[in-house]
Amino acid sequence: MNFLEERILKDGIVKPGNVLKVDSFLNHQMDIELMDRMGEEFHRRFADKNITKVLTIEASGIAIACSVARCFNVPLVFAKKSKSVNIEGDMYIAEVESFTHKNKNQVIVSKKFLNADDRVLIIDDFLANGCALQGLISITEASGATVEGLGIAIEKGFQIGGQVIRNLGYKLESLAIVDEMNAETGEIKFREQ
Amino acid sequence: MNFLEERILKDGIVKPGNVLKVDSFLNHQMDIELMDRMGEEFHRRFADKNITKVLTIEASGIAIACSVARCFNVPLVFAKKSKSVNIEGDMYIAEVESFTHKNKNQVIVSKKFLNADDRVLIIDDFLANGCALQGLISITEASGATVEGLGIAIEKGFQIGGQVIRNLGYKLESLAIVDEMNAETGEIKFREQ
Repeated sequence: MNFLEERILKDGIVKPGNVLKVDSFLNHQMDIELMDRMGEEFHRRFADKNITKVLTIEASGIAIACSVARCFNVPLVFAKKSKSVNIEGDMYIAEVESFTHKNKNQVIVSKKFLNADDRVLIIDDFLANGCALQGLISITEASGATVEGLGIAIEKGFQIGGQVIRNLGYKLESLAIVDEMNAETGEIKFREQ
Repeated sequence: MNFLEERILKDGIVKPGNVLKVDSFLNHQMDIELMDRMGEEFHRRFADKNITKVLTIEASGIAIACSVARCFNVPLVFAKKSKSVNIEGDMYIAEVESFTHKNKNQVIVSKKFLNADDRVLIIDDFLANGCALQGLISITEASGATVEGLGIAIEKGFQIGGQVIRNLGYKLESLAIVDEMNAETGEIKFREQ
């Protein structure tokens, strides 16, 4: 069992509806030491990919992505979820549906910040149905850049997202894959990796 | 002139309507080395405050706040802007209006992550009218915690936010205060601090 799986067992809470609450250390209150440890682990797993840019989506992916970008010594770009008056000019836009919020968002990245020479590592905190990741892949491919890989903190292995992205041939690394959760007993079963 | 002011002059772009675009290094694409340098500077300015928690608001404040929290070796909490199905139970809620997006948001922090013993440093990337900061102050005070200070990357000195917060007696430190901008000439005038 790795450090993230151990932390999930210690501080994660299983709620009805296949909700895994990790808001005390991952996506509301954040343990920066844990973020840095995840950053180092993703750096190790994608060390041979000559990453030039880390891409994530607001908001809770940003902290992990900062730690990853620091390890690779490259810029971080975060996709925005709705059109802002401060974003103008040419933009890559993908439409995605949020599993958490049950609404559709436009995922937006300024064309200035992705180009054909970029070798992109996509980072996010959660992978469930994978709509957000599909949007980030779509935007990266549209720019002519290469998706070198995807790094996820927690993948819900009983939802379709991870399988779809692996089927598409991308290198997807999830630090913890939850295959089963039981809200009554609080039990969490991780996939052996 | 400090490192942030120099960077704004180098890479910031003045747009009509008092918009300062810093999306190439601060709030869309992010220069992690710059984030860390800001983190160290805020750590220096609030070193005597025994900070126990860093508080920010999604999304673009998170990267700077990560670097600040690392320097203080304390957790980071980021306030959410709308009710999420993953946030439940008791929450502190403040209503704020965004200058950028021209809409009202509820700013939400779970009661679990702020308590009366906390000495809070509030961090954000921009201060204009200060509505977001007022929401974060309101939430912190409601929890019984102490607002030890507020650290901002870029303050628009020609808007009311900074003055209001200083008038209320809070220690507010902005790394760059823009007093005048000219979209035609691109000129930016910083306040002497």
